[in-house]
Amino acid sequence: MAEEKLTSQKENFSEWYNQVVQRADLADYSPVRGCMVVKPYGWALWENIKADLDRRFKETGHVNAAFPMLIPMSFFEKEKDHVEGFSPELAVVTHGGGQELEEPLAVRPTSETIIGYMYAKWIKSWRDLPVKINQWGNVMRWEMRPRLFLRTAEFYWQEGHTAHATYEEAQEETLQMLNVYADFARSMAAMPVLKGVKSETEKFPGAVNTYSIEAMMGDTKALQAGTSHNLGQNFAKAFDIKYLSPNNSLEYCWTTSWGMSTRMIGGIIMTHGDDNGLVLPPRLAPYQIVIVPIFKNDAEKSVVMECVDKVMAQLKEFRVKLDDRTELTPGFKYHEWELRGVPLRLEIGPKDVEKNSVMAARRDIPGKPGKSFLSQDNLADQVRDLLETIQDGILAKAEKFRDENIHEANTYDELKEIVEHGWAEAWWCGDAACEAKIKADTKATTRCMNFEHQHGHGKCVCCGKDAEKKIYFSKAY
Amino acid sequence: MAEEKLTSQKENFSEWYNQVVQRADLADYSPVRGCMVVKPYGWALWENIKADLDRRFKETGHVNAAFPMLIPMSFFEKEKDHVEGFSPELAVVTHGGGQELEEPLAVRPTSETIIGYMYAKWIKSWRDLPVKINQWGNVMRWEMRPRLFLRTAEFYWQEGHTAHATYEEAQEETLQMLNVYADFARSMAAMPVLKGVKSETEKFPGAVNTYSIEAMMGDTKALQAGTSHNLGQNFAKAFDIKYLSPNNSLEYCWTTSWGMSTRMIGGIIMTHGDDNGLVLPPRLAPYQIVIVPIFKNDAEKSVVMECVDKVMAQLKEFRVKLDDRTELTPGFKYHEWELRGVPLRLEIGPKDVEKNSVMAARRDIPGKPGKSFLSQDNLADQVRDLLETIQDGILAKAEKFRDENIHEANTYDELKEIVEHGWAEAWWCGDAACEAKIKADTKATTRCMNFEHQHGHGKCVCCGKDAEKKIYFSKAY
Repeated sequence: MAEEKLTSQKENFSEWYNQVVQRADLADYSPVRGCMVVKPYGWALWENIKADLDRRFKETGHVNAAFPMLIPMSFFEKEKDHVEGFSPELAVVTHGGGQELEEPLAVRPTSETIIGYMYAKWIKSWRDLPVKINQWGNVMRWEMRPRLFLRTAEFYWQEGHTAHATYEEAQEETLQMLNVYADFARSMAAMPVLKGVKSETEKFPGAVNTYSIEAMMGDTKALQAGTSHNLGQNFAKAFDIKYLSPNNSLEYCWTTSWGMSTRMIGGIIMTHGDDNGLVLPPRLAPYQIVIVPIFKNDAEKSVVMECVDKVMAQLKEFRVKLDDRTELTPGFKYHEWELRGVPLRLEIGPKDVEKNSVMAARRDIPGKPGKSFLSQDNLADQVRDLLETIQDGILAKAEKFRDENIHEANTYDELKEIVEHGWAEAWWCGDAACEAKIKADTKATTRCMNFEHQHGHGKCVCCGKDAEKKIYFSKAY
Repeated sequence: MAEEKLTSQKENFSEWYNQVVQRADLADYSPVRGCMVVKPYGWALWENIKADLDRRFKETGHVNAAFPMLIPMSFFEKEKDHVEGFSPELAVVTHGGGQELEEPLAVRPTSETIIGYMYAKWIKSWRDLPVKINQWGNVMRWEMRPRLFLRTAEFYWQEGHTAHATYEEAQEETLQMLNVYADFARSMAAMPVLKGVKSETEKFPGAVNTYSIEAMMGDTKALQAGTSHNLGQNFAKAFDIKYLSPNNSLEYCWTTSWGMSTRMIGGIIMTHGDDNGLVLPPRLAPYQIVIVPIFKNDAEKSVVMECVDKVMAQLKEFRVKLDDRTELTPGFKYHEWELRGVPLRLEIGPKDVEKNSVMAARRDIPGKPGKSFLSQDNLADQVRDLLETIQDGILAKAEKFRDENIHEANTYDELKEIVEHGWAEAWWCGDAACEAKIKADTKATTRCMNFEHQHGHGKCVCCGKDAEKKIYFSKAY
């Protein structure tokens, strides 16, 4: 698996990505067009992502449930924009139990419609509100050019769906969940994302407003890493989700939805990875620590392994992998665990046993500068500190990289140049025609309007008209 | 929700079940034929089941992964029995991305085929073995007569798939996982299951041997609550799963699969429920304790709620629901939480505040006999004891009920009578024709051959021929 050298990021970032995903044993292609197999190492990473997000959802008052994965085709047609947006991507079940179905069923691409139907059935009175349900599951959107984690026909995600009595509450929920995503990305995945509103062109089909977190990948392209939608009363009207208000009037609910998916894994790979492979953030890594014992003969082995046992006993609070394979050299193992992104490697040989030490090698700092001797006394404290230093370090590095690669574009020429190797922030008149022209000329799309930058006004970077919106343009995954 | 009286179990067990599932807010029917919506309360129960099973799988050396939910139709045809067994139940995707597919894809009814394909790709050498992967997900088997949790077109489950170098290892794995299921059922769900081998007729399509755990429901019908299959080399040969042995010969692997599903929830309902509704085992209940404050006016309220806060602070290790709804009477709340099966109710009124006490009402013992005063001192210890007593109590009750309703059948007439209101254990020649006759005459099917009862021999209860197998017959879900 680890024999051949990886293509370097500079040489071909896209090829580097494909190699890392497969060689790090995160995922594999499947015989089903566009669908991936998430391998145990990749799924363990997703389980860590899930556990932390789920805790955040529950802390903000949400509960989990499960809705059918098949949705009657007619449901999509109830919301005009929704059907337009999703029809081209549907996988359709036409036969069941050996018979042709009266009405075809779509494999869910997202569940606003079926959940809307159920909410209409469940919600009667203002006392039933808010309803705040999340679902963990798989969805399917037909993809012509699949890429593991980034674009696959089937992917795994969570989708939150809430219903409220007022617009204000729905808006508060929408922004709360955007902040949950941003906090998660920053503190757990060490991804310094930017938050903002999407343009009309880029918003979710059926939403009033879509908010996103946008991350910069190692090639400076953008990745939309999570979205939160204020759906207004669009789905409430389409599915008749109504409640009786305290003064006995029948009102439509205000709904939201929000999702984060296995794309996040692609984002982590492309934010932190380097030419040696994956670099995983300690807070999410399936293994935070790999221990490689070093010995030349049975006598050394017994001394070293006894020491390894003592070290392991001190590290029970961490996710530790002991690589005790006998058929491989330590050097091969270093290479392999670097490729697989384990944040910290501990090497223990006969000299370490003698000196009561352990050699620690940080994944985020290659070679000698990342190595240090730790004492075997109070090892857990030292390791905890090191892992935190790594977590903080890769976040700081990613943030510096991002900030160095976002530039203000004052002219169209500047914009064109900047988006070749970074993100441009520029005034924009709000016209979809300008977005389309920029996309055609540069392949850059609008990412989001940073909340903090929406003051003052200027001239649209494309058409020169008065503009009150400032938006990021960049190439994106 | 809790207004009307439940149909009693005696009157109509099946109707009682349907009412409990819906009124206890566990699940609902969906607009998609045969598919259910698992509501938050039901899903929380499933999450507790999942968490405990997942821990057991990981402790026995398994890892999780995810395989595509769509499977090329041709894959099913590679294993003769498998295709025969599952073809009639498939939901088939014929269109994707607006186009008719060259090859239709089935929504997975189980994943032996797609996982077999991937294992053939991944497994090269004896060093790669064993492979022990589990998958949590949804599957679909078209159902003509759906019942919530028991038989739905889409259901949720886990499926373990392992590959080994020898038959013995595969057999050991098969039995290990059967035991994991049985231990889980007994210790967590308080379901005293019986373990054994299925008949050829009742085994999994494509298996060499299927082992099951069988539980007795409150109406004495059986529920197959988990299965573990030794697949021999059937799937290895169908999918070409081979490994290079230490002496360089190319050998087929030996594979197993095993699964437990949301059916288990139906099993819990029908094992412990009574005429007041659900009775949940404390170890799996979404809420182990519900606290109902009692007060008549604001003065009482402030005294009582202060006490409730103190009580809650003592009970942080438990899953506690505080029912502080003001628009409902305590009596209404008691009724509702009984219906929803919360193991322990704590009532706190002004007198309890005065006396430093709490009234505890056990769900498993209705009325006064189940009530006791607890001191507010050391409350956690008392509650922990009570919950354990409840867990043990409902297991003992279920075990007694089961044992009282299993009878030895020595003649065909006895068999016919016994299966009207229980399980019959009887000698059986092993002939499928006898199974078919018994099923036609009595609606009873063979459940499993209890490992511990397979000694000696007798005459087949149906045809009178020599018999060396003893098997359970009963009606089943």
